Amino acid sequence: MDIIRFTDQSNNTFYGTDFDGKYATVLDGSPFKSFRKTKDKSEVIKLLTPIKPTSIICIGLNYRQHANETGLPIPEYPVIFMKNIASIANPFDDIKLPESCIDPLQVDYEVELAVVIGKDAKNVSKENANNYIAGYTIGNDISARTWQFNNGGQWVKGKSFDTFCPLGPVMVKDVDPENMNIKTVLNGEVMQNSNTSDMIFSVYELIELLSCDMTLIEGTVILTGTPGGVGFAQNPQIFLKDGDKLDLTIEGIGTLSNNVVE
Amino acid sequence: MDIIRFTDQSNNTFYGTDFDGKYATVLDGSPFKSFRKTKDKSEVIKLLTPIKPTSIICIGLNYRQHANETGLPIPEYPVIFMKNIASIANPFDDIKLPESCIDPLQVDYEVELAVVIGKDAKNVSKENANNYIAGYTIGNDISARTWQFNNGGQWVKGKSFDTFCPLGPVMVKDVDPENMNIKTVLNGEVMQNSNTSDMIFSVYELIELLSCDMTLIEGTVILTGTPGGVGFAQNPQIFLKDGDKLDLTIEGIGTLSNNVVE
Repeated sequence: MDIIRFTDQSNNTFYGTDFDGKYATVLDGSPFKSFRKTKDKSEVIKLLTPIKPTSIICIGLNYRQHANETGLPIPEYPVIFMKNIASIANPFDDIKLPESCIDPLQVDYEVELAVVIGKDAKNVSKENANNYIAGYTIGNDISARTWQFNNGGQWVKGKSFDTFCPLGPVMVKDVDPENMNIKTVLNGEVMQNSNTSDMIFSVYELIELLSCDMTLIEGTVILTGTPGGVGFAQNPQIFLKDGDKLDLTIEGIGTLSNNVVE
Repeated sequence: MDIIRFTDQSNNTFYGTDFDGKYATVLDGSPFKSFRKTKDKSEVIKLLTPIKPTSIICIGLNYRQHANETGLPIPEYPVIFMKNIASIANPFDDIKLPESCIDPLQVDYEVELAVVIGKDAKNVSKENANNYIAGYTIGNDISARTWQFNNGGQWVKGKSFDTFCPLGPVMVKDVDPENMNIKTVLNGEVMQNSNTSDMIFSVYELIELLSCDMTLIEGTVILTGTPGGVGFAQNPQIFLKDGDKLDLTIEGIGTLSNNVVE
């Protein structure tokens, strides 16, 4: 079942499915318990992120090809950081280049398979990890590279400006997270094109390692790292600018599209 | 007004004030709107963190004396990282040394002035910052040093094991955040002893810098950095072990006490 979250004409928020581009079947329930289709169809006025994250935990350097392009060694343990939850952007929302902060920003795209944790997870083995997954969606781990690599080398602020975490458009469950094509198209040109099979730590391994003595609470979104082809590793480097159009596609989920504005 | 959060004999949760060590006056309202004293007194069975954080944003190296002891230069911009919200521990809860993860852990204490954001804050000037503060409490930014400095150098996991963020015991508002004595006592011995006047970036400056193009949502807790005297900078180094007792005191707030257990 493809799950969306949306507002209707009265600005009420619902979960839905069977979205045909204009209408959706309204769902009763919660992504963390279970859903039941109602008989109601509703016009979808605005698509929202499929869930509202309680926390965003991110993995760096999790694709072999991306680790190579950065010149950094293959990590022996996942590189773990977080994004501020206020950074989320809905499907089709604009990605806003920050105005008030230092230049140059060097804002970059990063397509990522996003895993939604469906119930509190602590010391979960990789064999059991699937039971804790509510579903998968697409995330864009937008990154201001100047901020990411300066100011003490902690990545949080450079990754957390408002609108720096588009998520969506749908959440799905029945996919194989270890074999999904994953792609970024910038203004019609393919920039990232890989498969989740290139991950150094699989989704299930990440849940085992992250949840080790640390509870992943219901509604946590895990961004599982980005494949090669990011802008700052291109020659010459490519950074996002006003008017750019990003289309991020993961096989079996769909396409997350956002424009960049100043 | 000193604000606590607690459970009563029926395991219901309340905000309270005028806590005499056994009973408190029940408050009606919210720490993010306003409180009104009720006529009810309730027995306090268990003290909780004064608020339940929506997010925990932390500052590294924010005291001159601590920057010096680490041998790192005085930062020109705050070092910003986050802790997982599941890491909170209540006043008097045990701090649990993680069991399943790599050795050596090198678990350390860090007393910090914790600022609770009372309403969504974006691009707030330091002159206006006080209007966005719900109150102040004490935080212990417990840190597993081996994890903090390895695995890619991002600090999140080493700072985010469950129980690694004791908060409390009370939240207060009418204090001067730029002049408060701040102290850690470990097993009766003073380890950290400073004043918030040694901060490189004041609380109001931090809110201006953090909120620059990044929304601090209602309920965000900002841990504002620790003064000199942490265990890993001692000679010989001191790390927390089973049976240790920590008492963290900030003038005008109170004392946050937690024991360490394996």
